[in-house]
Amino acid sequence: MTIKVAIAGARGKMGKEAVHTVMENADMELVAALDYKEIGKTLADTGLFPDSFQVPVFTELQALHQQCAPDVLVDLTTPEHVYAHTKQALQLGIRPVVGTTGFSTEELEELSELAESAALGCIIAPNFAVGAVLMMKFAEQAAKYLPDVEIIEMHHDQKLDAPSGTAMKTAHMMSTTRNAHPQGHLHEKETLPGARGADYEGMRIHSVRLPGLVAHQQVLLGGEGQLLTLRHDSFNRGSFMSGVSLSIREVMERQQLIYGLEHIIG
Amino acid sequence: MTIKVAIAGARGKMGKEAVHTVMENADMELVAALDYKEIGKTLADTGLFPDSFQVPVFTELQALHQQCAPDVLVDLTTPEHVYAHTKQALQLGIRPVVGTTGFSTEELEELSELAESAALGCIIAPNFAVGAVLMMKFAEQAAKYLPDVEIIEMHHDQKLDAPSGTAMKTAHMMSTTRNAHPQGHLHEKETLPGARGADYEGMRIHSVRLPGLVAHQQVLLGGEGQLLTLRHDSFNRGSFMSGVSLSIREVMERQQLIYGLEHIIG
Amino acid sequence: MTIKVAIAGARGKMGKEAVHTVMENADMELVAALDYKEIGKTLADTGLFPDSFQVPVFTELQALHQQCAPDVLVDLTTPEHVYAHTKQALQLGIRPVVGTTGFSTEELEELSELAESAALGCIIAPNFAVGAVLMMKFAEQAAKYLPDVEIIEMHHDQKLDAPSGTAMKTAHMMSTTRNAHPQGHLHEKETLPGARGADYEGMRIHSVRLPGLVAHQQVLLGGEGQLLTLRHDSFNRGSFMSGVSLSIREVMERQQLIYGLEHIIG
Amino acid sequence: MTIKVAIAGARGKMGKEAVHTVMENADMELVAALDYKEIGKTLADTGLFPDSFQVPVFTELQALHQQCAPDVLVDLTTPEHVYAHTKQALQLGIRPVVGTTGFSTEELEELSELAESAALGCIIAPNFAVGAVLMMKFAEQAAKYLPDVEIIEMHHDQKLDAPSGTAMKTAHMMSTTRNAHPQGHLHEKETLPGARGADYEGMRIHSVRLPGLVAHQQVLLGGEGQLLTLRHDSFNRGSFMSGVSLSIREVMERQQLIYGLEHIIG
Repeated sequence: MTIKVAIAGARGKMGKEAVHTVMENADMELVAALDYKEIGKTLADTGLFPDSFQVPVFTELQALHQQCAPDVLVDLTTPEHVYAHTKQALQLGIRPVVGTTGFSTEELEELSELAESAALGCIIAPNFAVGAVLMMKFAEQAAKYLPDVEIIEMHHDQKLDAPSGTAMKTAHMMSTTRNAHPQGHLHEKETLPGARGADYEGMRIHSVRLPGLVAHQQVLLGGEGQLLTLRHDSFNRGSFMSGVSLSIREVMERQQLIYGLEHIIG
Repeated sequence: MTIKVAIAGARGKMGKEAVHTVMENADMELVAALDYKEIGKTLADTGLFPDSFQVPVFTELQALHQQCAPDVLVDLTTPEHVYAHTKQALQLGIRPVVGTTGFSTEELEELSELAESAALGCIIAPNFAVGAVLMMKFAEQAAKYLPDVEIIEMHHDQKLDAPSGTAMKTAHMMSTTRNAHPQGHLHEKETLPGARGADYEGMRIHSVRLPGLVAHQQVLLGGEGQLLTLRHDSFNRGSFMSGVSLSIREVMERQQLIYGLEHIIG
Repeated sequence: MTIKVAIAGARGKMGKEAVHTVMENADMELVAALDYKEIGKTLADTGLFPDSFQVPVFTELQALHQQCAPDVLVDLTTPEHVYAHTKQALQLGIRPVVGTTGFSTEELEELSELAESAALGCIIAPNFAVGAVLMMKFAEQAAKYLPDVEIIEMHHDQKLDAPSGTAMKTAHMMSTTRNAHPQGHLHEKETLPGARGADYEGMRIHSVRLPGLVAHQQVLLGGEGQLLTLRHDSFNRGSFMSGVSLSIREVMERQQLIYGLEHIIG
Repeated sequence: MTIKVAIAGARGKMGKEAVHTVMENADMELVAALDYKEIGKTLADTGLFPDSFQVPVFTELQALHQQCAPDVLVDLTTPEHVYAHTKQALQLGIRPVVGTTGFSTEELEELSELAESAALGCIIAPNFAVGAVLMMKFAEQAAKYLPDVEIIEMHHDQKLDAPSGTAMKTAHMMSTTRNAHPQGHLHEKETLPGARGADYEGMRIHSVRLPGLVAHQQVLLGGEGQLLTLRHDSFNRGSFMSGVSLSIREVMERQQLIYGLEHIIG
């Protein structure tokens, strides 16, 4: 059976990738696009896609639903739109796959109840890169057995914050299985301040920023005579598409809201 | 409660490490050693351990059991002795933790029935390095989502076989979750034979042999725009001791035979 | 002093990057573009560049020279054009920086004589990625001291040939300083054929092909108790631009033809 | 021609390795050992070496010289002895190879003059690991072309100081070729202090400390679209022996004092 997919936010960077991903998957059909402004009758009209992409564009989800009856709405728009889209989709019987964060706890609870009462799958994923999610899950599992941990995350030098959000989330996930304890020598001394990195419950986090880098992270877990390294390299935006495809298929099998790809993977 | 441990094979390379490991763990007590020949009254007498290691040595498990009543027998002897030791231990109510391979299927079945009927734990582990076992488990889980896989294993240049046993086992474990398919370009061409490595159901395995190396493996899983790398470095024999400690604790909680650390980890 | 630069092949993938690179360098001025067909009066007219790129386009180098008097011609066109361009540039007193291969030995000799007699610099570089060239140079130097070597090159799975050209060139460069000898155990055995990779005078080369990868290479040099690893990751075409800028500056300082960035680096 | 070698400090950890190294090299002969106390007539008598190591032991260099006439004295003793040994060796016409630091500037100058006037080679090397020295040299060369640099050094968790001496020396060497400048985003922010590591003229240094690790360092040099990584892993003390052999051969070819292996390598 082919899954009928609609995409909101098709003109954005992630959205464009998602359009191509759905078009290339044999078990999916891109039946419509949702856009907040009139951008033409079809995706081809926007000039952003090949002429063969004769996918109708709508400005209202209601009309889209009536004419195209999608099974799934992939929403890659901004936080301000995404809550309304998701709620309306569930009310119309469309399963949402959402790639933005920024829901309040109340909104998540409401959407969760909506999904459950309608027995519809709904997947909200702050990170669609399957490899990154696997790295975090494995780190969480491994920290139970190898509780001496350092994280090295590496990004391009235009990144503002250090450590990265993924590093912080990884450390948090490991803290749920790891016995918290200080690491390194009891009397260790930094002859240059900062050398030993940031401290998260004893785990150390190091942030590398260099031109050329994209988005990379390694989790190092040391034990007597051994080292376990879990590493994820994200080379470009395409890394998110594996998670989009996976979510489109998985949302058809679920009857409730799932927050985070880690709950459908592994 | 302190776990009373006896060790068979205490004079071997692995055995010596195990003696120190048990001595250093506060929740364990080394109550006896088993040796096939008379090596002295205590471990200290062998000259291989400090004078304080006043641990009695026995040549018969029966006598050892009567005088020292161990909870667990850690067996690091050779395949020829290990089956008899394990069987006798189970008959005497001692839980075996075994670090050698070389059991026949019939022997494993017999030991399994013995353990079950006596409701005694028995752990047999071909690989005690917790990090290596985690790497293999994670590779198995990840290959389901990222089925394009290459393994690079790296060892010292005195190793005879390529690929390593661990690489073969990793590939086998991944083959249970991965969709088998050829990898690389359909028309790819080796201008130097062997460049693309060994083929295991489409997965590629590369064996690096260099002086200086010890035992290292990385599993590379590629997907659109991303790479997930799982790596284990074993720097010395101590890497096995984490698995020995873990098994001693776990064997107390079990009532049957477990083959492979992967079944008590993760 | 500002270096006046003309670019041939500005509409190609590399050419476009080069246009931006020259525009962004404060010590360079992009004075003209050379194209084999009439593409408009300026680069901006092509629709491939911002409106502010009011750089005149010529179809003849002679006319370009008369009106814009460039110091350097960066040539990123195809092999069929590049020889004629380079020869004419030297005759007009313009210093060529060339990024394509495909010159015959006779052509190189002729260009070399032309450059020398005119006392003009001329740089021809098959590989403009400064990092890759450094990796190869360092591998060549190190192989003298650590002659046990394996190369692991890793590329996307659409690459046809294995090993890569860079791996072959690296192995060749190392063969000039390394004592040729077989590596690995004298009696080593491949239980799966190909595991030990390709053989180049005893050095082993392994080619990894995975979706997601771009272009990566590591050179491993082992010695007693140690490992030296030289690694280059090329994440995108931008990696070549460091070598283009460097060559534009260096070609002004030279009075002869230089083949290969390795002769102006290090 | 065979090089006649004497070793001071043969009973120490490094000294023992050096004894084996010289015994295994076909172009060298171990003719004597120097020890500050009477440890027996031969190395075999100490019980630390095989019975076949019938190498005479002396407590005075003068007597050792008269009876054994070594070409080279390898000195692996402590700083307090090494200056006197080196001076006396040069006066006796023996070429010193010294592996300890701790000379004062005055002592180095005096030894340098002694070596020069006697036209004798004398090699003093704070780090004998050839791979580590190559890594530092390459880092120095590469920083000229790729001036955005971060160092990650990784050691066992019993190390007291961070950053390591090798990391500091590497940063210093790079500072001689690199344009000093701040790295990372102008407005970058540490949400956990220390994340961005230690600052050395803009370069960042990160110190990882984990059980299981030995001594490892990687130098990361980023440029547009690319990353160059220089990595050295020291797995055990044997890593120093390549430098000892090299120095024994090189000291025969020199007529002055050389401080640092980097001046005889590359």
